[in-house]
Amino acid sequence: MHILLTNDDGYFAPGLQTLYTTLAEGGYDVSIVAPDSQKSATGHSITLFEPLFITKHSLDRGTGYAVSGKPADCVKLAIQGSIIPKPDLVISGINNGPNLGTDVFYSGTVSAAMEGVLLGIPAIAVSLASFSAVDYKPAAQFVTLSLSKLRLGPGLININIPPLPEKEWKGVRVTKLGKAVYENVFEHRQAPYGRDYYWQAGTVSPEVDQETDLYAVQEGYVSITPMHSDLTDYIKLKELRQSLSLENPNK
Amino acid sequence: MHILLTNDDGYFAPGLQTLYTTLAEGGYDVSIVAPDSQKSATGHSITLFEPLFITKHSLDRGTGYAVSGKPADCVKLAIQGSIIPKPDLVISGINNGPNLGTDVFYSGTVSAAMEGVLLGIPAIAVSLASFSAVDYKPAAQFVTLSLSKLRLGPGLININIPPLPEKEWKGVRVTKLGKAVYENVFEHRQAPYGRDYYWQAGTVSPEVDQETDLYAVQEGYVSITPMHSDLTDYIKLKELRQSLSLENPNK
Amino acid sequence: MHILLTNDDGYFAPGLQTLYTTLAEGGYDVSIVAPDSQKSATGHSITLFEPLFITKHSLDRGTGYAVSGKPADCVKLAIQGSIIPKPDLVISGINNGPNLGTDVFYSGTVSAAMEGVLLGIPAIAVSLASFSAVDYKPAAQFVTLSLSKLRLGPGLININIPPLPEKEWKGVRVTKLGKAVYENVFEHRQAPYGRDYYWQAGTVSPEVDQETDLYAVQEGYVSITPMHSDLTDYIKLKELRQSLSLENPNK
Amino acid sequence: MHILLTNDDGYFAPGLQTLYTTLAEGGYDVSIVAPDSQKSATGHSITLFEPLFITKHSLDRGTGYAVSGKPADCVKLAIQGSIIPKPDLVISGINNGPNLGTDVFYSGTVSAAMEGVLLGIPAIAVSLASFSAVDYKPAAQFVTLSLSKLRLGPGLININIPPLPEKEWKGVRVTKLGKAVYENVFEHRQAPYGRDYYWQAGTVSPEVDQETDLYAVQEGYVSITPMHSDLTDYIKLKELRQSLSLENPNK
Repeated sequence: MHILLTNDDGYFAPGLQTLYTTLAEGGYDVSIVAPDSQKSATGHSITLFEPLFITKHSLDRGTGYAVSGKPADCVKLAIQGSIIPKPDLVISGINNGPNLGTDVFYSGTVSAAMEGVLLGIPAIAVSLASFSAVDYKPAAQFVTLSLSKLRLGPGLININIPPLPEKEWKGVRVTKLGKAVYENVFEHRQAPYGRDYYWQAGTVSPEVDQETDLYAVQEGYVSITPMHSDLTDYIKLKELRQSLSLENPNK
Repeated sequence: MHILLTNDDGYFAPGLQTLYTTLAEGGYDVSIVAPDSQKSATGHSITLFEPLFITKHSLDRGTGYAVSGKPADCVKLAIQGSIIPKPDLVISGINNGPNLGTDVFYSGTVSAAMEGVLLGIPAIAVSLASFSAVDYKPAAQFVTLSLSKLRLGPGLININIPPLPEKEWKGVRVTKLGKAVYENVFEHRQAPYGRDYYWQAGTVSPEVDQETDLYAVQEGYVSITPMHSDLTDYIKLKELRQSLSLENPNK
Repeated sequence: MHILLTNDDGYFAPGLQTLYTTLAEGGYDVSIVAPDSQKSATGHSITLFEPLFITKHSLDRGTGYAVSGKPADCVKLAIQGSIIPKPDLVISGINNGPNLGTDVFYSGTVSAAMEGVLLGIPAIAVSLASFSAVDYKPAAQFVTLSLSKLRLGPGLININIPPLPEKEWKGVRVTKLGKAVYENVFEHRQAPYGRDYYWQAGTVSPEVDQETDLYAVQEGYVSITPMHSDLTDYIKLKELRQSLSLENPNK
Repeated sequence: MHILLTNDDGYFAPGLQTLYTTLAEGGYDVSIVAPDSQKSATGHSITLFEPLFITKHSLDRGTGYAVSGKPADCVKLAIQGSIIPKPDLVISGINNGPNLGTDVFYSGTVSAAMEGVLLGIPAIAVSLASFSAVDYKPAAQFVTLSLSKLRLGPGLININIPPLPEKEWKGVRVTKLGKAVYENVFEHRQAPYGRDYYWQAGTVSPEVDQETDLYAVQEGYVSITPMHSDLTDYIKLKELRQSLSLENPNK
């Protein structure tokens, strides 16, 4: 199995490098095509108005590429630009920090995996729900050992590892995406010479829905969420077809 | 009804300015909070690591704000930063170019509307499926006159206007999102001094599924697609819960 | 006489547009090649690692070009890229704010003019020493009427207009560059989540050397400073040749 | 002697890291405050409209700082922001590539050193005139061993090392700045969808003036050029004072 490995923290981020080593040790054939610098919170951005540059790096067992674009650019370029042989699986991560609930929309990590899905390749996003993590090895081993069990198909598996030493993990839960609600999101300040500015930040409110990824990680479980790529609302579609006058109202 | 108007082409883009005027003439109370420059293809990016600056602009009937961030930042800042009174509706557009099928993931226009949905506000994204449009007025009138008919609720309505003079529009179709398949996506070239680079471009293959937004616009219809924000795959979730050993495989 | 007009505040900045109109009314043949957005404080930056894009704009009497690069890129591209016929003079400005003393090193306005000098074209930089100016007309007229008197040759003339209504200008002084000394340059703050950051700002100390541009403008005079492009220190060169052992000390 | 070490190739560039180690081994007390990424060709840019962030890194003998700004920002922040104790000397480099003749205007390396001079600290810029260099050690040793001989004072010493193995260096020359003349500077191409773009590149014409830095390095010598910071043209100043009517011509 040939795996395309990418992320949004950049080519040299320890989360990606640890996962590369662990997958390679597990016998997988892995190619890295990842951003050349930190691209967190860039969502599903792509680069249309500027060229993309790539830098080759040597890997123990092959060649890796750092790309001057966003996470989704890396997956598109790897597959549609034929930078590497066609992969059987896209893995994005291990991210530094969680990617849970509605926050997946902002996530470069999840968007890179979703780009794989859009191009017909099964995909996994992996995040370690801690911003101060130094040891990605347990998370990398979890992913490597789980690959054969995840029933990979035409969709995305979003994995979040709790911010705990491995022996304190409570277990594994299959979850739905929760709703990340932030409080005190903006700090309002003044720059020199009087210009106003705003910092975006805030804290996530505790989740109460026990079926969700947010709750699972909050409680110390590994969360596994299967995701699809179809944003059509079929119930509303039916309603609108019944109610909407299909004439152009301008006439 | 108080409407928050935004886009991804920037505050002074004619698509947004025409829609502002048309909505205001239609009696709606409209506030503009939009990016201060072109932010196409930035998806659901948000700005976490730098401050956001805002510039006030005078409007005929109020005040508008140009923001140094991405489309989703504008909606978050408007609502969570209380830049304007809480809106009843978010409208994003009118975009210069289509936002159809799986391309909605890349779209700053659609992502701004989706941010409204995530914050509990009904939202509409509007795009004119032409890159050389000069007249946004028919599209703006269509949106203004349709507002009362769209059964606005906790979701997103994605509207695409065909690239035709209004009298040649074939009608209105309620559609599902199609799959935008691109061909010849990357051009590979060499920069001075020998550096390789890649341009992302390509052309969309013709759509054959007649239920889709891509097909509708291809045939000259206005396309209206209701969208939700839940990316959980509930079928796969059930399968995984039945099959997956919920133990940590590292043990 | 064919004039290349540029600036660092961007193509549509009122300082440049007013100077264009005034020069054209004065009978000069003017081409604009200027940055497409605000590029203040970019010094003599040039763009080597990315391509430059140009956008054509109509002018009353010709064609202007907005460039996706820095002020010095505009001058290089105009002349070495043959975007316009070879100019006889480069004028950069009218800048929003002063460019005095050692601050000329940071100035995109002065650097654009210096690029003209490096390419063998006489050049003028013009700045209005106010950040809240709305009327650039008196400064534009001063420049237009002075062109024939400035003995333009293979060097740069740096003009600064005092921040006063024209009738309060005290007169015109030919000056040397002073030394801009700033106090309280950095404000130290903390971003959300504890990251340190610094804002650069500060205030210029009053100048006491009456021969300088800083003093002239401080006193309400128009300042005219002739500048050259040779940073060699010939006195020190002579000393070093006498004292320095010309052997490689590694040996 | 406390040395502030900076560059424009970024904190982790091998030229800077090798010079740090060599100076420290030579008994010098060295603090690094350098850009956090590649900032070549940024001239004397400074960051006024955004905050600067710093990241601390451990050094064998102290603490180093990577700054989110330009080379000149690093020197200003180090000294005016009191990030480190006041240095006795600023050294910028070792740059990857030459900084010769009029090209010093574009150079982030030389501009960082010039910023030291503007703040009253003697400064040295060091460049290795090769883009494919892997061994910076001979250049680092040359600088370290030359420190006591360079008669450091209130100015800048610009050192360029020839692109040759050390044993092939022909010797050391004290030079003046030459004039870097480029040929074939721009390549004109078309992006997908027909947008024009230009790449800046070109080759330097051979220098014929034997007194210059360009000639010295061309011939295989180490070049040492003393530079000052006074761009006033005193000869022209005298001429203008005699000829220029000091009246406002608008009147």
